Amino acid sequence: MSDNNAVTACLILIGNEILSGRTQDKNLAFIAKGLNDLGVQMREVRVIPDIRKTIVDTLNECRAAFDYIFTTGGIGPTHDDITSECVAEAFGVGMYRDPDTVDLLTQRTRERGGEMNEARLRMATFPEGAILLKNEISAAPGYRIENVFVMAGVPRIMQSMFEEAKAHITGGKRMLGRGLAVDLGEGTIAEGLALVQARYRDIDIGSYPQMRQEVGFRVSVVLRGPDADVLDRAHAEIMQIMRDLGGNPEVEDPDKAQASAEPDD
Amino acid sequence: MSDNNAVTACLILIGNEILSGRTQDKNLAFIAKGLNDLGVQMREVRVIPDIRKTIVDTLNECRAAFDYIFTTGGIGPTHDDITSECVAEAFGVGMYRDPDTVDLLTQRTRERGGEMNEARLRMATFPEGAILLKNEISAAPGYRIENVFVMAGVPRIMQSMFEEAKAHITGGKRMLGRGLAVDLGEGTIAEGLALVQARYRDIDIGSYPQMRQEVGFRVSVVLRGPDADVLDRAHAEIMQIMRDLGGNPEVEDPDKAQASAEPDD
Repeated sequence: MSDNNAVTACLILIGNEILSGRTQDKNLAFIAKGLNDLGVQMREVRVIPDIRKTIVDTLNECRAAFDYIFTTGGIGPTHDDITSECVAEAFGVGMYRDPDTVDLLTQRTRERGGEMNEARLRMATFPEGAILLKNEISAAPGYRIENVFVMAGVPRIMQSMFEEAKAHITGGKRMLGRGLAVDLGEGTIAEGLALVQARYRDIDIGSYPQMRQEVGFRVSVVLRGPDADVLDRAHAEIMQIMRDLGGNPEVEDPDKAQASAEPDD
Repeated sequence: MSDNNAVTACLILIGNEILSGRTQDKNLAFIAKGLNDLGVQMREVRVIPDIRKTIVDTLNECRAAFDYIFTTGGIGPTHDDITSECVAEAFGVGMYRDPDTVDLLTQRTRERGGEMNEARLRMATFPEGAILLKNEISAAPGYRIENVFVMAGVPRIMQSMFEEAKAHITGGKRMLGRGLAVDLGEGTIAEGLALVQARYRDIDIGSYPQMRQEVGFRVSVVLRGPDADVLDRAHAEIMQIMRDLGGNPEVEDPDKAQASAEPDD
């Protein structure tokens, strides 16, 4: 499916330890689903290290190519938190210190028996033009600058910032989903699926082999598109094709997270 | 740290359902660790949809920028498996059918009571110049073409193909790691960490806040670099700084997977 009217987004995950495999990202799925609810399609994700040039270049490449950009990570107080400097460089602007954020950080720090210092003040320093995304969990806000939303890497804080970001987003059509699972091999069902896909150009049909402990080998089929009636018709056709091929298809939630997949036939 | 002699890699995860959040990727961490064991640093990951132009453009951009490229996904028999056509287009080559793979697929399909068809033959069709990466789990191989390794998305098959790929990879220095965890806030330890980082330019020091059920708030510090002695010295200095700040630092495995993180102070 190609939809030139779609509202698109790109997610940039910033952090060496996602790239090393140490930290398992939990933000991609949350943001993808949250954006789809708003009618925005996540079209690309990039995982990049804490390297200044890489962050600046990636920001500039992506903000020209997609309607919205979201970043996670690199806005804490330590030396490896360089996202905000990079955002300022990418936009060619200076940085400012927000007095309200300084006050809030100072208060929170004192409550915990710490003292305000230069490191913590970094979390109150933003690219000029940033609109702050305050959140309920951390005194340090995320922010929006033009079409870029800069958020924390810590999932609970990011989620709170994303809630604030929603008011800034104008989406298009929401993508709906339909799913089924069948006890046939991908090679067996491929021709039938391709014929349905060829007749329904406004939906995406995907096929995902998997091995489930309890039921053995299955293929999940997922249909996505903006029109419920069209999806229902295509779904019914595929269910019938599966029965004609001798399979026992079952309706499946297309959004149920799948942790793993196993061999194709 | 910037090391212009490093051997670098980029991973391209191809698939709509990773982008939708439905499928949780399990391949990034496996490949990152496997490459590091070979002395190759994974410097970027891209997650892209099953869209021909996006796959071709991403392949060409990345294969010019990194020493090795790995792709996962899109090499099965169904209509949404378009990776191999895209690889051929990116390299400007045609495709060929491998007779041995046809024989093996035919035999496997018959053993399972199925019949060979056009869809299954797609899995025996490769870009010209591809060197096949046979694997023990699936009759359909992955392949190498120049500096690009094309692998399955299914983790168990991908892992088997990656084993075969290793013989084709010439790495550089392996990155070693040291870790510690401490019961202090990031804002408290930031200045000390920055001073150590400033004196050890050949290592990367990262700081990761987390909340663990059993022990409460902690910050994990990870040091990575190629020289064990240098890492040990920097690690010892940071341990001492944490004690001087009133903390109780403990040595921690830097490669232990971390599933989540929680608020900074």
